Amino acid sequence: MKIALAQQNFKVGDFGNNTKKIISLIEEAKKQNVKLIVFPEMAISAYPSKDFFNSDSFIDSCYNSINKIASHCDSIAVIIGSPSKNTAKGGRQLFNSAFFIKDAKVEKIINKTILSDFNFFAENQYFEPNKDFSLIEFNGYKIGITIGEDIQEIKSPNNFKTPMEELQKLDPDFIINIATTPFSFSQQTKQLKLLQENAIKNKLPIYYINQVGAQTEILFQGGSTLVNSTGKIVEQLSFFKEELKIIDHKNAITRNNLPQFIPIPKIEKVHDALVMGVKDYFQKLGFTKAILGLSGGIDSAVTLAILEKALDAKNVKALLLPSMFSSSHSVDDAEKLAQNLSVDYEILNIANIYKSINKTLESSFKGKEFDLTEENIQARIRAILLMSFSNKFGNILINASNKSEIAVGYGTLYGDTCGGLSVLGDVYKTEVFELARFINSEKEIIPENTITKPPSAELRPNQQDSDSLPDYDILDEILFNYIEESKTIDEIFEMGFDKKVVKKVISLVNINEHKRHQLAPALRISDKAFGIDRDMPIVAHYNF
Amino acid sequence: MKIALAQQNFKVGDFGNNTKKIISLIEEAKKQNVKLIVFPEMAISAYPSKDFFNSDSFIDSCYNSINKIASHCDSIAVIIGSPSKNTAKGGRQLFNSAFFIKDAKVEKIINKTILSDFNFFAENQYFEPNKDFSLIEFNGYKIGITIGEDIQEIKSPNNFKTPMEELQKLDPDFIINIATTPFSFSQQTKQLKLLQENAIKNKLPIYYINQVGAQTEILFQGGSTLVNSTGKIVEQLSFFKEELKIIDHKNAITRNNLPQFIPIPKIEKVHDALVMGVKDYFQKLGFTKAILGLSGGIDSAVTLAILEKALDAKNVKALLLPSMFSSSHSVDDAEKLAQNLSVDYEILNIANIYKSINKTLESSFKGKEFDLTEENIQARIRAILLMSFSNKFGNILINASNKSEIAVGYGTLYGDTCGGLSVLGDVYKTEVFELARFINSEKEIIPENTITKPPSAELRPNQQDSDSLPDYDILDEILFNYIEESKTIDEIFEMGFDKKVVKKVISLVNINEHKRHQLAPALRISDKAFGIDRDMPIVAHYNF
Repeated sequence: MKIALAQQNFKVGDFGNNTKKIISLIEEAKKQNVKLIVFPEMAISAYPSKDFFNSDSFIDSCYNSINKIASHCDSIAVIIGSPSKNTAKGGRQLFNSAFFIKDAKVEKIINKTILSDFNFFAENQYFEPNKDFSLIEFNGYKIGITIGEDIQEIKSPNNFKTPMEELQKLDPDFIINIATTPFSFSQQTKQLKLLQENAIKNKLPIYYINQVGAQTEILFQGGSTLVNSTGKIVEQLSFFKEELKIIDHKNAITRNNLPQFIPIPKIEKVHDALVMGVKDYFQKLGFTKAILGLSGGIDSAVTLAILEKALDAKNVKALLLPSMFSSSHSVDDAEKLAQNLSVDYEILNIANIYKSINKTLESSFKGKEFDLTEENIQARIRAILLMSFSNKFGNILINASNKSEIAVGYGTLYGDTCGGLSVLGDVYKTEVFELARFINSEKEIIPENTITKPPSAELRPNQQDSDSLPDYDILDEILFNYIEESKTIDEIFEMGFDKKVVKKVISLVNINEHKRHQLAPALRISDKAFGIDRDMPIVAHYNF
Repeated sequence: MKIALAQQNFKVGDFGNNTKKIISLIEEAKKQNVKLIVFPEMAISAYPSKDFFNSDSFIDSCYNSINKIASHCDSIAVIIGSPSKNTAKGGRQLFNSAFFIKDAKVEKIINKTILSDFNFFAENQYFEPNKDFSLIEFNGYKIGITIGEDIQEIKSPNNFKTPMEELQKLDPDFIINIATTPFSFSQQTKQLKLLQENAIKNKLPIYYINQVGAQTEILFQGGSTLVNSTGKIVEQLSFFKEELKIIDHKNAITRNNLPQFIPIPKIEKVHDALVMGVKDYFQKLGFTKAILGLSGGIDSAVTLAILEKALDAKNVKALLLPSMFSSSHSVDDAEKLAQNLSVDYEILNIANIYKSINKTLESSFKGKEFDLTEENIQARIRAILLMSFSNKFGNILINASNKSEIAVGYGTLYGDTCGGLSVLGDVYKTEVFELARFINSEKEIIPENTITKPPSAELRPNQQDSDSLPDYDILDEILFNYIEESKTIDEIFEMGFDKKVVKKVISLVNINEHKRHQLAPALRISDKAFGIDRDMPIVAHYNF
């Protein structure tokens, strides 16, 4: 029996095109004598669909798509993810389901048991969890279908058993897991380990079919996988690319001579994920052109290199916006970078605008010292100029803030925090350096001086980031432990960091929720992205 | 038996002060011979606490507070809301609970069955729903305790019964409902109706104890109520104010001669809710001073009047920032308003800055016409000047955008959308006019001309809002039906609106998710506030 894995990229709510694409893949598979084609979780609507799930007409559109698809399933069966209606007189109105389509009709609907914990899916808000278990029978096989987290070792609150324990009782021949696993740099390892442990424990082959593509800030890497009943990888599909893979089931699960699958290094994956994220954001919005402010620093340099990869140099415009506080090397470094990438750029000096603003404020600010106010004015002038280009020429302004500075609020709201999409907003500064080295691995694209000079915002004479913040290697470790690892201040003290430094860093994180509330969506590459993974109150007392 | 209702305002995570306050209320009640004192849902931590619920140390702090409180409960019993730990080996780790404290120890923990549907509480993400029902016995009474939505006609997915049906089987003498009901202008009527219908149906008196105060954008009105077993209101506590009300139970539920409770008109409630929201935002953040840009238009006028009520004139600063496109009446109207409210103001003309920006952009924009770009530049200059005052003097910039313009994206991102808190972001333009009339009901505070002149952004010569948008009474009705009522385009057509207008309005709403993503939190007064109630994808196809 030939099984096709359709690892595809869909756009939320775009039923016309999604359905057309699904049908053409089915027709393609039929030509190749495929008996069963499997699409990811929620492929019908694309995922996450957020409050579209509250719309009856959205759900009707899902059912319409399924009916259209079913009419093409004469000689092939389909497993595909979609919301389905809960007809019981209690509980939430929808399930997160897998539709099994055979002989041109929906043969069975299997519902998800373990709803996702990710804040940004909000599955517990929309879906009722499944309580009934059964297999599908097809072509002489008994197949257990699981959705996303159903293959995790999480016990259902209804009977304190895992879905795999329930399915195992029914004696399946193999398992199909349809998923929308959100990418993070640690996720590939965890997901693969989960598949392998599951296969070994249950002595069953498992097909894992994952969504690929970006949905605003949420990235899906694909990497769909077949592991055999001894936990060995038999097939692994591309990362960050669509693929239709046809597998001869019997052959595949009995193969002995298996190829080695070498994991891709973290920073390469992060790079590729960000490139896909930018590309998909523009494609799905129907835009082509980006604009970016280049400071000569490492954040905007790495962002520009990623934009160039995702959109092509011809669609990227850079502005160099020096002030009286900019060092000459900043402009030189930025120019060199733009030239290395063949990106069009202009240099506009902000000094005259800065003077006219100070002049307007002169009498109101009489007797007051130069402080953060004047630093912020410079950053905000740059934002005005960038947004003016964006408005005049239709380029989307891209934000170059990194996760470390967003964490501690080291950035100007309505200044360098502006932009429609943040490329590095979930990337710590130390990881930005790693990305720069990766980008330069074949030849120097980012000028060496941009990487080696001490980071500076250049908003006052001789300013360096280290005047206000601990060194980035220390800062990032404290931040990672506080944000990703949810450690308390005391636990971080005990790791050997300076008490005063830890207190200062954590206090900065806590008092800057209001800034993060107003930031652009940031491509998610970690397990704890601000905003979407970590939803903290703006007004609250934080030291308990 | 004397029962005290403690309708109080707590700050999220501020365990020290919250606990101190709770204990002093208990001591006060003891002095007055109260036998049972009841606090709202989640009073221990204040609500919503968002991802604090994922923190073990936050939950430990809740338990510590309860222990401290219990030690004061020698001669009094307490019912108080708090998260509690789920010790079963499955399901979510917490319950949303009512702790019944008696004889200085926790006697019983009652858990919430019907978890809230509000996106911003995300209760399904944090809490396991209750499945077991029992009463508490106290002082010869059998009392049914319900939490928030437990008194609604919502059936549990476990047994298809409502919590009230379950409790009724156990034959309670009366019901106590502890709640954190989020305010909206229609909520009071609905909540009261719910209490009355419930009381009549079950032939039971119901005590409803609600949180009061603002948690960033979520407002809680208080208005705790006792209805007797015939559904009549016996007691109703203040709106938007703390109160400790002592009720003689037997006396109250048997009283015949009951006072009339006249509902407060919608616009007065909205006004009072907004005033409380502003006041609490500043108090809980520890700030005192606000700054606002005054255009002479109605939105900033109403916002200033609310700021003055909430913070006192001495803590409010206004900037008048005219350009070459501002009409003379705009400055006059704004000055008159500031004078009427005794608010300090300055006038800074933005023309020179505007010129210097255009000069800097001159060669880049050569041959291009004046368009939205130049309009946005003016709005963004104003934001720079306002934020400069904010940075220099520590005044929080307040945003004056209304819900209608936020809905259709009629505002400049990083311009007039700036601010730490949006006062009118959930108030439609037609409601802003109602607020202006209400504010002027005793004497003219907002100049009549501000109310009667046609709305204009004044960003180009002779501009009026009606050049780009339908009249506000039509616009708001379309928006209300699309956003609050979740009607489809077709359903709105059928109400008799012009097809072209409806299509344009809805398309504007859909393409402006990216702007709304970056706005300040807006005080919530409707059932469907952007962002917190309505979570829509930025990148998606919207026309199905």
